[in-house]
Amino acid sequence: MAAKACNILITGANRGLGLEMVKQLVAKSCSGCQIFAGCRDPDSAKSQDLRELAKKHPSLIRIVKVDTSNMQSVADCAKKVGPLLGKGGLTLLVNNAGVMPHNNMKTITAKEMQDIFSTNLLGPMMMTKEFLPYLQIAAKSSGKPGMSCSKAAVVNVSTVGASMAKAHEMFELFNVVGYRISKAGLNMMTVCNALEFKEDGILFVALHPGWVRTDLGGHDAAISTTESIEGMLRVMESLTEKQNGAYLDYNGQVLPF
Amino acid sequence: MAAKACNILITGANRGLGLEMVKQLVAKSCSGCQIFAGCRDPDSAKSQDLRELAKKHPSLIRIVKVDTSNMQSVADCAKKVGPLLGKGGLTLLVNNAGVMPHNNMKTITAKEMQDIFSTNLLGPMMMTKEFLPYLQIAAKSSGKPGMSCSKAAVVNVSTVGASMAKAHEMFELFNVVGYRISKAGLNMMTVCNALEFKEDGILFVALHPGWVRTDLGGHDAAISTTESIEGMLRVMESLTEKQNGAYLDYNGQVLPF
Ligand SMILES: NC(=O)c1ccc[n+]([C@@H]2O[C@H](COP(=O)([O-])OP(=O)(O)OC[C@H]3O[C@@H](n4cnc5c(N)ncnc54)[C@H](OP(=O)(O)O)[C@@H]3O)[C@@H](O)[C@H]2O)c1
Ligand SMILES: NC(=O)c1ccc[n+]([C@@H]2O[C@H](COP(=O)([O-])OP(=O)(O)OC[C@H]3O[C@@H](n4cnc5c(N)ncnc54)[C@H](OP(=O)(O)O)[C@@H]3O)[C@@H](O)[C@H]2O)c1
Repeated sequence: MAAKACNILITGANRGLGLEMVKQLVAKSCSGCQIFAGCRDPDSAKSQDLRELAKKHPSLIRIVKVDTSNMQSVADCAKKVGPLLGKGGLTLLVNNAGVMPHNNMKTITAKEMQDIFSTNLLGPMMMTKEFLPYLQIAAKSSGKPGMSCSKAAVVNVSTVGASMAKAHEMFELFNVVGYRISKAGLNMMTVCNALEFKEDGILFVALHPGWVRTDLGGHDAAISTTESIEGMLRVMESLTEKQNGAYLDYNGQVLPF
Repeated sequence: MAAKACNILITGANRGLGLEMVKQLVAKSCSGCQIFAGCRDPDSAKSQDLRELAKKHPSLIRIVKVDTSNMQSVADCAKKVGPLLGKGGLTLLVNNAGVMPHNNMKTITAKEMQDIFSTNLLGPMMMTKEFLPYLQIAAKSSGKPGMSCSKAAVVNVSTVGASMAKAHEMFELFNVVGYRISKAGLNMMTVCNALEFKEDGILFVALHPGWVRTDLGGHDAAISTTESIEGMLRVMESLTEKQNGAYLDYNGQVLPF
């Protein structure tokens, strides 16, 4: 999607999958592209890799402060990024920031569930709402028919753990009930948004990145961030209106809800 | 499930489907049964029908105050009801209370989403957590193998609107994005709980009551509360461990997630 000048915003871009996505998009970007790398603590140690990457590509990467669990921070982010998008609007929003605390029904508290929900569901919801006008601009200004990630799209980073149909296969792996509830909600939001904004030409998908070696995925995970993001970008480049509202993994396989 | 002495707790029992369920359970109950009719405003006008019904069956129906969106109220409810359950524990918890404000992605606010989530998901979660010890007592004391609603069960009142697989068929009908997200989360919680408490012998199901003429369902809905609850109780009576974690409608049809 970065083969022509476009604007991309990725949340949680300072480490893990978000950082790797910025890296790989840099390699694919052409002049005029802008990558907005969202991150809640741009000045902290955990954002050092991103800062170094941004320093190497000053005209391409812009670090933007955004805590997706904080509605004011999301609104501030839109206020700041919006005017920088220009006539092209926002081509692609990747709602990647997420948290996965370990819990089960016995240990989870209402507060913990609310916090997970704030980051994993309300964050993507408010990001989508705030950037909707810019996504609409991107869709309109593209002049292309159909849907694609190079026209106007929102990618919600989901998980196979959000699949209820597959829950029985995976129970032992996932002692993270709050996470699964929040991501099932995220899948539903993706499906509803795909329907609500169909006429606007904005594509919505939920993507499972695979089980990936990151802080969240753990050391024992199956694949590297390189492999996951290569797959995700390949899938994203292939998407059309046929996949609007779909739930896919990083290989393009359709997952059952 | 009320054919032998058992304890049943239903939230949102002062009107709509909850009230009708209490009514029909009264007709099916035998001596020694207790029906705890949860209701957030026992003294208000909107609880008058329930008060009258309870007055007619003083040894059977007990009205209990519980606002399921308020964690303290849920805890207080468990503290009050728990000691009344006796050696039989809690046979059946029906998480019925729910709200469905109209909204779409353009109109919904973070606050509104949080409020819907509080009642429709956190409520059932906290009710289940608080009453889990009593459900475990019911399962253990029953002496029966397998699972059933007359042994120990949690019925989460869901909706076909929570089906992502069917979302495309139903978009025009449901301009209620926050509701759908919350109920998809409720379905995931049902599935996870079914797995987590399998060894305890507690059955968990998500039931869609049909499109029913209540304040929530509206005047134009397809069926009466009588028909819906007759169907739901028939389905509930038929459930075994085979349906643990299932998502069914009031006719017993399996719904796709
Ligand atoms: N790794 C896997 O196996 C796997 C599998 C399925 C799905 N996923 C999904 O992939 C996404 C990325 O996960 P990951 O593996 O890269 O995890 P990660 O290495 O733990 O990184 C998570 C990222 O999200 C950010 N984040 C968390 N809460 C935030 C908030 N409130 N505001 C802004 N940023 C926030 C973190 O920022 P800080 O550095 O400030 O904490 C970090 O940049 C998540 O949505 C996750 O659910 C991952
Ligand atoms: N009717 C349908 O077509 C339909 C279809 C699918 C699913 N459902 C589901 O069926 C369930 C019952 O719906 P209904 O049609 O009977 O709706 P209703 O007539 O609007 O009744 C809702 C009930 O929930 C209670 N309630 C709401 N918030 C509560 C809270 N925070 N604490 C305690 N009680 C609360 C209400 O109490 P107050 O009187 O105090 O407000 C009322 O008793 C809901 O979960 C709904 O999602 C209904």
